[in-house]
Amino acid sequence: MKNHLMLSSLDLYCQAPAEQNLLIDDFVKHAGVSRGTFYNYFTSTNDLLTEIAMQMSDEVLDIIEPIILQYDHPVERIMLATKLYLRSAIRYPIWGQLITSIGPKFTIRGRNISLYLTRDLKKADDLALITIKDYRVSRDIFLGSAYYSMETILTETVGQDYLNLVMESMFINLGITQDEVNRLMSLTLPSEIAIETPYFSLLKGLQSN
Amino acid sequence: MKNHLMLSSLDLYCQAPAEQNLLIDDFVKHAGVSRGTFYNYFTSTNDLLTEIAMQMSDEVLDIIEPIILQYDHPVERIMLATKLYLRSAIRYPIWGQLITSIGPKFTIRGRNISLYLTRDLKKADDLALITIKDYRVSRDIFLGSAYYSMETILTETVGQDYLNLVMESMFINLGITQDEVNRLMSLTLPSEIAIETPYFSLLKGLQSN
Repeated sequence: MKNHLMLSSLDLYCQAPAEQNLLIDDFVKHAGVSRGTFYNYFTSTNDLLTEIAMQMSDEVLDIIEPIILQYDHPVERIMLATKLYLRSAIRYPIWGQLITSIGPKFTIRGRNISLYLTRDLKKADDLALITIKDYRVSRDIFLGSAYYSMETILTETVGQDYLNLVMESMFINLGITQDEVNRLMSLTLPSEIAIETPYFSLLKGLQSN
Repeated sequence: MKNHLMLSSLDLYCQAPAEQNLLIDDFVKHAGVSRGTFYNYFTSTNDLLTEIAMQMSDEVLDIIEPIILQYDHPVERIMLATKLYLRSAIRYPIWGQLITSIGPKFTIRGRNISLYLTRDLKKADDLALITIKDYRVSRDIFLGSAYYSMETILTETVGQDYLNLVMESMFINLGITQDEVNRLMSLTLPSEIAIETPYFSLLKGLQSN
């Protein structure tokens, strides 16, 4: 039931005009459930949309994880994961908009993206590939840079130059040399990852209309 | 009426137990207004809380702006403003929590914090104090770092070391030398800024209980 409500809500969110502010009544009507059912699972429309955005974030990471785990080099992992994650936001801008509506309070604490990034940052530090004084500082600056850049990518529909410049800066900021950043940036990766979950299939269907 | 509803809602938000999820009905009851009145101004509790958080952010900036405009050096401005802004979040953690609930979609686009930062970044670039390849990249990385760090500052109640390390990193990331960062970090500033607006006075009153 919760899943039905979330999928139906994503469907409504995608189809509603950008200027329309969706209310709880809109979501329950679209899903054909009662307000009581809504409140069994969510406290507000924001709570609902946050959960949808983070569910989809975890789905993207579920695809990315097995790809990057083929690499032993933790900074290569971070580079490929970052590129694939940001590209997914460009490929599915509605998901990107949902994600950039959410603050750090909901994206850092105990979330997979934070756990995976911290794992690879610590491994990179252990191998002396980067120098970390406090892994939380590195994590916060890296994730903050990624999510804030995503907003500009989506709102200003910037070109590949902006994306490349942001990513270069994020890795330079980890203390990596320009030569090594150039090498990391040139790593080949799947041109597009296929995300076949119900949520992304729904977006794909609506975007192709 | 809108202002009354916002102030009353902040009051309720502060006094409610952290685990309680506040609904529109809670806010309208506390303010003594109808649901219709609520929907005249806001579309959801998230919309309401976002507006309160950004109103308070602008109030903090209204205090900071005249202080930093006494300095001609744009990087000194950015340093002092960042320190004062982050310190305000520590001094008023409930405001900090509100701000870290909000995503970049609501904190970058057309907001004062983004306008002031961009102004000083551009001036610093003009004076060759920093080198900016794309001011949006620098802005997104700087703001993202600040807001994401704020989450850790508030949630993990880290010490002064963390705050100093984050700020040093943010300025190193702008391409400033370690010596110059050390000089900037040692600039003296008012130990605490007084924010006497209704919203912050309300927080101060509740925090001192």
